[in-house]
Amino acid sequence: MTGPMIDSIKLDTLPTMRDARGALTVAEFSKFVPFAVARMFYVRDVPAGTRRGQHAHYRCSQYMICAGGRLRVTVADGKTERGFDLSPGQGIFIEPGIFATETYLDPDTVMLALCDRTYEKEDYIHTMEEFLEYRAGRKT
Amino acid sequence: MTGPMIDSIKLDTLPTMRDARGALTVAEFSKFVPFAVARMFYVRDVPAGTRRGQHAHYRCSQYMICAGGRLRVTVADGKTERGFDLSPGQGIFIEPGIFATETYLDPDTVMLALCDRTYEKEDYIHTMEEFLEYRAGRKT
Repeated sequence: MTGPMIDSIKLDTLPTMRDARGALTVAEFSKFVPFAVARMFYVRDVPAGTRRGQHAHYRCSQYMICAGGRLRVTVADGKTERGFDLSPGQGIFIEPGIFATETYLDPDTVMLALCDRTYEKEDYIHTMEEFLEYRAGRKT
Repeated sequence: MTGPMIDSIKLDTLPTMRDARGALTVAEFSKFVPFAVARMFYVRDVPAGTRRGQHAHYRCSQYMICAGGRLRVTVADGKTERGFDLSPGQGIFIEPGIFATETYLDPDTVMLALCDRTYEKEDYIHTMEEFLEYRAGRKT
């Protein structure tokens, strides 16, 4: 089996400064994000309980941040699956070759993702079957 | 008078894909953000009507995005002042040498900022008086 294993995946807690004027959460990329960021996207207005993502990337690295509500990120490496529950201000690095599913647990959940590549349609592995073939080394 | 003038400041509308599973807003940095991003921060849970920011930077460029609610960004170049009302998915590039104030118009307003530099305490110009001196070229 090739590629990263989920044992190395961990949650980060980003610094949040909170006072009467609100809450500021900051990600210094050099500390938390192990790549040069080329693209950012965020997802909101998701009905509670909805699952999104459900794909892996061949080449794109992503750093996912829960920016509101509660986000469950389920990661699979083809052998093991593990779920992480992210509270606001928590982040997780998802390497290419990891199949990730995001469940938006609360109606106000916001997911913010930083990526090292621009959008490339051909970089997605959309099914678990295709993913398992890729991880088994039968497709590169 | 030295430095950028606010005539060049404009609003961008970032692409938003909306369907039954929610809304995804994306910023391809090469298209919208005219610098390499080193840091990101977002601000939320701000009481409606609160003003934040109220400073300029000597060197840091920022790209501000309204990620929810309604955000008013007021920019000043030392000669002219102008307000921009941002809806969700709209962004604005703030060069160093522009004094910016953000007013969080709605209770659910979220401001997301991308910066080209790490946090540097000495890079802030905190008062309009100091800013006007700087823009007049009396301090560099």
